[in-house]
Amino acid sequence: MVAHIISVGTELLLGEVVNTNATFIANELKNIGISVYHINTLGDNEQRLLDELYSAYKESDIIITTGGLGPTKDDLTKEVVAKSLGLDMILYEDEVEKLKRYFKDREHELNEGNMTQAYFPNTSEIINNPNGTASGCIINKNNKIIIVLPGPPREIKPMIKQTVIPYLEKLSSRYFAYKTINVIGVGESKMEEMVMPLIDSQSNPTIAPYFKESGLTLRVMASSDDKNKSEKMLTPMIEKVHQMLGENMYAIGDEISIEDCVCRYLIEKNMSISTAESCTGGMLGSRIINVSGASRCYKQGYITYSNDSKLKLLGVKEETLQKYGAVSEQTAIEMAIGCAKNANSDIAISTTGVAGPDGGTDEKPVGLVYVGLYIKGNTYVKKFNIFGTRQRIRRITTSHALDFLRRTINIPVYEF
Amino acid sequence: MVAHIISVGTELLLGEVVNTNATFIANELKNIGISVYHINTLGDNEQRLLDELYSAYKESDIIITTGGLGPTKDDLTKEVVAKSLGLDMILYEDEVEKLKRYFKDREHELNEGNMTQAYFPNTSEIINNPNGTASGCIINKNNKIIIVLPGPPREIKPMIKQTVIPYLEKLSSRYFAYKTINVIGVGESKMEEMVMPLIDSQSNPTIAPYFKESGLTLRVMASSDDKNKSEKMLTPMIEKVHQMLGENMYAIGDEISIEDCVCRYLIEKNMSISTAESCTGGMLGSRIINVSGASRCYKQGYITYSNDSKLKLLGVKEETLQKYGAVSEQTAIEMAIGCAKNANSDIAISTTGVAGPDGGTDEKPVGLVYVGLYIKGNTYVKKFNIFGTRQRIRRITTSHALDFLRRTINIPVYEF
Repeated sequence: MVAHIISVGTELLLGEVVNTNATFIANELKNIGISVYHINTLGDNEQRLLDELYSAYKESDIIITTGGLGPTKDDLTKEVVAKSLGLDMILYEDEVEKLKRYFKDREHELNEGNMTQAYFPNTSEIINNPNGTASGCIINKNNKIIIVLPGPPREIKPMIKQTVIPYLEKLSSRYFAYKTINVIGVGESKMEEMVMPLIDSQSNPTIAPYFKESGLTLRVMASSDDKNKSEKMLTPMIEKVHQMLGENMYAIGDEISIEDCVCRYLIEKNMSISTAESCTGGMLGSRIINVSGASRCYKQGYITYSNDSKLKLLGVKEETLQKYGAVSEQTAIEMAIGCAKNANSDIAISTTGVAGPDGGTDEKPVGLVYVGLYIKGNTYVKKFNIFGTRQRIRRITTSHALDFLRRTINIPVYEF
Repeated sequence: MVAHIISVGTELLLGEVVNTNATFIANELKNIGISVYHINTLGDNEQRLLDELYSAYKESDIIITTGGLGPTKDDLTKEVVAKSLGLDMILYEDEVEKLKRYFKDREHELNEGNMTQAYFPNTSEIINNPNGTASGCIINKNNKIIIVLPGPPREIKPMIKQTVIPYLEKLSSRYFAYKTINVIGVGESKMEEMVMPLIDSQSNPTIAPYFKESGLTLRVMASSDDKNKSEKMLTPMIEKVHQMLGENMYAIGDEISIEDCVCRYLIEKNMSISTAESCTGGMLGSRIINVSGASRCYKQGYITYSNDSKLKLLGVKEETLQKYGAVSEQTAIEMAIGCAKNANSDIAISTTGVAGPDGGTDEKPVGLVYVGLYIKGNTYVKKFNIFGTRQRIRRITTSHALDFLRRTINIPVYEF
C-alpha cells in the first residue's frame, strides 16, 4: 500500500516550524511496511488543499493529513476533506461532551470556535486525542483511507501509535516487528562502522541506524506472516549488535533515556541519589525527576550556580575554589561529596563547567565541563569538552553525567 | 512572486531525516517577501519528479529543488529538470577544473560518477558550493526561475545566503520588515479574538498569529519600496496590538522567553532570585540559568521533591505538610519564604504539584499545581490546573511560575 502525507499549515510554508510530523508518520508507516511516495505541505487554503486531495486520491491508497483542526477560522482541513469526498459535516455528540468536560475542568468558557471541533465528515471514525481538544478521524471511502490528524507533534504521536497504526496493521497480511537499540558514547559514523558487517549482510531482520536529537539508535526490524514469529526473529540479531557495540548500547526500547535506566536500577537496588549542579542549573535533576516514580530514588538537589552557594550549600572549601577554580576536578568532587553528605544519599552527581557564550579563557574554554560522582564513599571525576550553544553544552553535559554514572556502576542493558 | 520547493530524497520519505532544508529556504524567502505555496517531498523517481515539475511550472514563478545532485546513478534531479525544460545537459569546463582540484587536494581519484557533477542544463548559471562537490544552478526560462540545489543542509545554507537570495532580491523592488510579538496567559483562539479587529482590517502591515511549542506569537509584517520605511510602519501597529492584548503581551523579538524578560528586569533593578522546586524538579532553575548572564541575578536553587527535603532544606513546617499536604497553598508559600531566607534573595519562586501520571486523587488530581512567590517580604500564591503528560505539566508549570512573577512585579514589555 502506498501513502501520501499532506501537511497543512501556513507556519510550515513560512519556515517557522520544521515538519517533524511528516518524518514521524513516514517512519511509523515504514515500520508496518507502508511506502510513502509524497509528503506535500501547503497552507490553509481551500482550493489548493482540494487540488492536493484529488491528486492524492489518484495515486495513493492511504492519505494522511496533519494540521488545520484548530478552533479558528483558518482551520478548514476537515471541511475540505468532507467536500472532496462529497460528505456532510456532522455534529458528534460524544465529542461535544468531551469538549464540555475539557473546558469545565479548566474553568474556561467553551466558545463557538471550539464547538467546530465536534464536527466531522459523515461516516468518520473518531481518533481520540489524549493531549488536546482536536480529535482526529478516519474515513474509509471508495477504497481510499483518509486519516485526518491535528498539527501539534505531542498530540499526533499518541494518536498515531494508539489508533492509526493498529487500524492500518489490520488491513495488511504481513506482520512487522521491530526493536530500537539505544546507543551513547560513540558518534554516528563510528556506530555505523562498528555494526557494518551486520548492515552489509542483512536481509530479514534488517538493521538501520538513526540519529535523533535525543540520541543515536539502531532499528532492528523483521517481518513474516505471523506477529510472534517476527518478534522472535529479532533476538539473535540484537545479541549480535550488543557484542559489536559493547557498553555503548544502553537500552532496548523506543525513546528510552539514560535516566530511565538509572532510575530503574537504583529503585531495584534500593539506592538513593542526589544532585549538585552548577552549569546545568537544575537540568540534571529535572531529567531524573521526569522519570515517573523517581521519588523512589531521588532525594534532593542543589542548584549552586554561584561560588557562594557552592560554599554554603555543599561545603566546597574556599581554598579549593581559589586554588583550582569553580570549574575543576577538585570542585566537582567536593560538590559531589557535600551533596551526598547533606542529602544522606548513596550516590551524588555534580556538574561544573563553562556553558558560555561568555566566560571562556584559554585555559578554561567554553564547553569545558567536569562531572563528579560520589558512590558509597568512593569518588570519580571526568572531564569533557563539549561544542555548541549554551543550551547544547548544558544538555550534553547532563547526558554525559548520567552516562558516566551508568558505566561506573555497571547498569545492565534493560529492555523496556 | 510565488515559490514552490521540491525536496528530493528517499531518506525523507522513509522518515529518517527531518526536512530542515525546506524550513530554512521558506524562512529565507519569507524575509524577502516571496510566498511559498507548496513544499513537496518525493523520492529519486524520474516520472514523479517530472510530474511535480510540470505542476510547479503551472502555479509558481520560482521553483527550488534540493537533493539528488550526488555522484551516484540514483541522483537524477539535474537531468530531469533539463528534460522538463527541453534543455540539453552540457559539460561546464570550469566545473571540471573545480572537481579535479577538489579531488587532487584530497588525494582521491576522480571517477566517472563524480564527472556527472560537472554537467548542467544548458543556459545554467552555476551556484558555487563552498562545502562540497555538488554545485547548484539557476535557470531562467519562460518567465520561470528554476533553482537546483544539493541536499546536505550545511552545503545548502551558504549557497542560499550567498547566491540565491541576492539573485532573487534583485528581481524584486519591494522591501520587507517584521517583528514578532510574544504572548502568554491566553489561549490561541482567545488571542485571535482579542486582536480580531486588527486582523480583519489589516492590509499593510499584516498581522498573523502563530502557535509554537515555545509559546504564542503574533507576527507583524510591513512592506514598501524602502527598508527603513517598512520598519517604521511596524510601530503604530504594535502599539495597537499592545492595547488589545494588555499585559498578556510580554516581549517583542524572535524566540524571546519569559525568563529572558525576568532576568533582564532583575539585573536592571539589581534584584536577586532563588528557586525551590518540587514537581518541576530543577526545570525552573534550568530555564533561568539558560539565560546568558543569569549569574547576575540568580542566587541558588533547591530541588525538594521529597517531604523530608522540604522540611530540612526549606524549613516547611511538619504541621503544614500534615494538615494541608505537600501540594497546597500553604506549602508553596512556606517553600518560597524558606528559599528566600536561606538564599538571602529578594525574590523566591516555589512550585509544588501533582505531575502524574500516578499520585492523583479526587481532591488533588494530576495537574493540580501551586506556585508560591516571595517578593521582598510579601508572599503570593496561585493555583493552576494543567492538562497533559508529566513532561508537559512540569513544563507548563515553569511557564506559569515565571509569568506569575512577571505580572506580580510588573515587568515592562521589552524589545529584544
